[in-house]
Amino acid sequence: MLEALKEQLHKLHLELPKNGLVTWTGGNVSARDPETGLVVIKPSGVMYDDLRPEDHVVLDLEGDVIEGTLSPSSDTASHLYIYRHRPDVNGIVHTHSPYATAFAALNRPIPVYLTAIADEFGGPIPCAGFALIGGEEIGQQVIEHIGNSPAVLLKNHGVFTVGKSAKAAVKAAVMTEDVARTVWYALQLGTPDEIAPDDVKKLHDRYTNVYGQR
Amino acid sequence: MLEALKEQLHKLHLELPKNGLVTWTGGNVSARDPETGLVVIKPSGVMYDDLRPEDHVVLDLEGDVIEGTLSPSSDTASHLYIYRHRPDVNGIVHTHSPYATAFAALNRPIPVYLTAIADEFGGPIPCAGFALIGGEEIGQQVIEHIGNSPAVLLKNHGVFTVGKSAKAAVKAAVMTEDVARTVWYALQLGTPDEIAPDDVKKLHDRYTNVYGQR
Amino acid sequence: MLEALKEQLHKLHLELPKNGLVTWTGGNVSARDPETGLVVIKPSGVMYDDLRPEDHVVLDLEGDVIEGTLSPSSDTASHLYIYRHRPDVNGIVHTHSPYATAFAALNRPIPVYLTAIADEFGGPIPCAGFALIGGEEIGQQVIEHIGNSPAVLLKNHGVFTVGKSAKAAVKAAVMTEDVARTVWYALQLGTPDEIAPDDVKKLHDRYTNVYGQR
Amino acid sequence: MLEALKEQLHKLHLELPKNGLVTWTGGNVSARDPETGLVVIKPSGVMYDDLRPEDHVVLDLEGDVIEGTLSPSSDTASHLYIYRHRPDVNGIVHTHSPYATAFAALNRPIPVYLTAIADEFGGPIPCAGFALIGGEEIGQQVIEHIGNSPAVLLKNHGVFTVGKSAKAAVKAAVMTEDVARTVWYALQLGTPDEIAPDDVKKLHDRYTNVYGQR
Repeated sequence: MLEALKEQLHKLHLELPKNGLVTWTGGNVSARDPETGLVVIKPSGVMYDDLRPEDHVVLDLEGDVIEGTLSPSSDTASHLYIYRHRPDVNGIVHTHSPYATAFAALNRPIPVYLTAIADEFGGPIPCAGFALIGGEEIGQQVIEHIGNSPAVLLKNHGVFTVGKSAKAAVKAAVMTEDVARTVWYALQLGTPDEIAPDDVKKLHDRYTNVYGQR
Repeated sequence: MLEALKEQLHKLHLELPKNGLVTWTGGNVSARDPETGLVVIKPSGVMYDDLRPEDHVVLDLEGDVIEGTLSPSSDTASHLYIYRHRPDVNGIVHTHSPYATAFAALNRPIPVYLTAIADEFGGPIPCAGFALIGGEEIGQQVIEHIGNSPAVLLKNHGVFTVGKSAKAAVKAAVMTEDVARTVWYALQLGTPDEIAPDDVKKLHDRYTNVYGQR
Repeated sequence: MLEALKEQLHKLHLELPKNGLVTWTGGNVSARDPETGLVVIKPSGVMYDDLRPEDHVVLDLEGDVIEGTLSPSSDTASHLYIYRHRPDVNGIVHTHSPYATAFAALNRPIPVYLTAIADEFGGPIPCAGFALIGGEEIGQQVIEHIGNSPAVLLKNHGVFTVGKSAKAAVKAAVMTEDVARTVWYALQLGTPDEIAPDDVKKLHDRYTNVYGQR
Repeated sequence: MLEALKEQLHKLHLELPKNGLVTWTGGNVSARDPETGLVVIKPSGVMYDDLRPEDHVVLDLEGDVIEGTLSPSSDTASHLYIYRHRPDVNGIVHTHSPYATAFAALNRPIPVYLTAIADEFGGPIPCAGFALIGGEEIGQQVIEHIGNSPAVLLKNHGVFTVGKSAKAAVKAAVMTEDVARTVWYALQLGTPDEIAPDDVKKLHDRYTNVYGQR
């Protein structure tokens, strides 16, 4: 079931190591099928090179496994918590991408120092508090702190991104690391001026409504 | 039309991710055909792996699309502004390459700390002011600040480079990131001596007139 | 003899350059065969691209070469010392991976600033003292300082990791560099809060007992 | 003529971009043929992907082109100066590898903070003064400052390495960048203890005489 979504998720999973966002078996992507409401997610602790489309696990929003023989990601409960509280979200990504996680280690949001941050995030990337892994606590932190941003940092941990599709969430994860890296470089040279809120809004509106192909 | 130029632009576009200058769909290259005066540019928001030669958009200098079914880069108006004001320029590149953009975030030019900067740039790499994206404002900033350099930083944003050909502009974009990176590393250790203006001139003259194949 | 183990070691050796842990001929992996107690190790000074499964050297725990025409790694005596003192260890990795080695250069352990450190290491990554290369001294330093961690830094030198298999030791080497890098980035921004010992224990227990496939 | 040496030099040239030591057309390797005393060197301003074995230029020690239709590297006069003054040297490499060049920008030698530096270099990596490009001045700086090290930094410029073969010089260039990077990382955390001169000597002797295959 959901073969097309599994194929898409498989390709998106390969974007994580390709973009330097994950190490060994870390990180995961999930997608919610808008028709059935079922969620497809990475199995726990599998190497990206070994992952096949049919290895993905299908669950319902309460966490019952609908299809799949492998154990789902140990972040599954938090993914499902986010899907239950954000009906607009159909894709979620979790990584420990290194520059973004450095900000997360310090519980430090990323201000709008770059037009790329205004474009993709529409404001600062917020940072959520510390939570243990395995249950819904991370999902609660994400929902509490992410606001309208597609990304949130997790104190002492890493990054969660969301999107209206798994591809949008992967894009947000890639852009989170990209802007975290450039801001980190900038902060070693000094403290940039933040872009004015009015300009942030104009940049974000243009990027959301005009950029790309219709 | 302009098939050879589109093929060349396609190859040059692939140099941007290969050299670590762009992330996801960001960045763009354009070229002006010296005979017809028409400009070929990347379509907006297309992944580099998906980009084909025939996807490039052909416009005249006033921004009328002459050929192409995709929307052109959202930086098109600024590219055209630069072409109109710099008849010597036939290639333009825009990136958010991370080390150069760190200097840009701080509105900070890159001094001539390295022979490689004297060689390629003939002086410091200047930094232009902040401008919104989508119109000609960035092009105006570029023209106002670039002087005789092939590269200019844009405050809180990124990099524009120009050249007598698209290949020369891509080379300038690659070298901008390369020297920005090394200067950034050096600045974490201390403040280098700048190369004396007389030596900068000698190095730049030799590189321009003797280096490479005739 | 031990063909399957040599094949496995060959594949694991290729993970070192793939994950950016080694340069030129540096670094090595060894494995102990649980049945015979013999140890298989990289030959000294061989490029990773040139290394073949049959090039690995087989020794007994006293250092007598049982099979192989090449000289074994110059770290062999230290590997064997570790195997003799740690019957639970069947795999050992040595690298100069750059971020971890930066901490090692300063004789500085890596605190538990990240959930990934709690997960994989169960506590701080300790740092052992300086020792010369070629004899057992490094092995003695490793045994003295590694405790329950799968990794230990070596002052002014690099990293040793151990595991119940060579694959587990390679994973520990990869994760050591990964967390060293992120902690290094974080320390340039400030000093993170350490994760509380109770939470470290919970994270490590879950990762050890629940994470991955059964 | 010297076909085997050109083939070898071609392969060694490809190690430079593979190891992240060069950008675009920068950097070069030369080799002296021990029998004829002739020198083979990279042509000026050629991209590494385009370089073919037959493109290399053959010169005598006085700089007369013996074979080849392309212009030789603009560093040729300095390579030849080094060969004339160091009969033990049969290979030379020049790069702007970024971490080493950061130290060079500051005219700052690299102390023996790591066993890898003792192993490969037998002491600190020295830094020579500033010199213009194109004539013998760089070669004079190299000879004056390199001492017994296989590598020397050039103020505001980059790196020269030498070896008894081109392969040994390439290895020294790779190791120079590797240790410069790790030392640079370490210096952002604090100031390491230098390894004691006696231990440096022991490490270097062992590495020179015991490490690798006989």
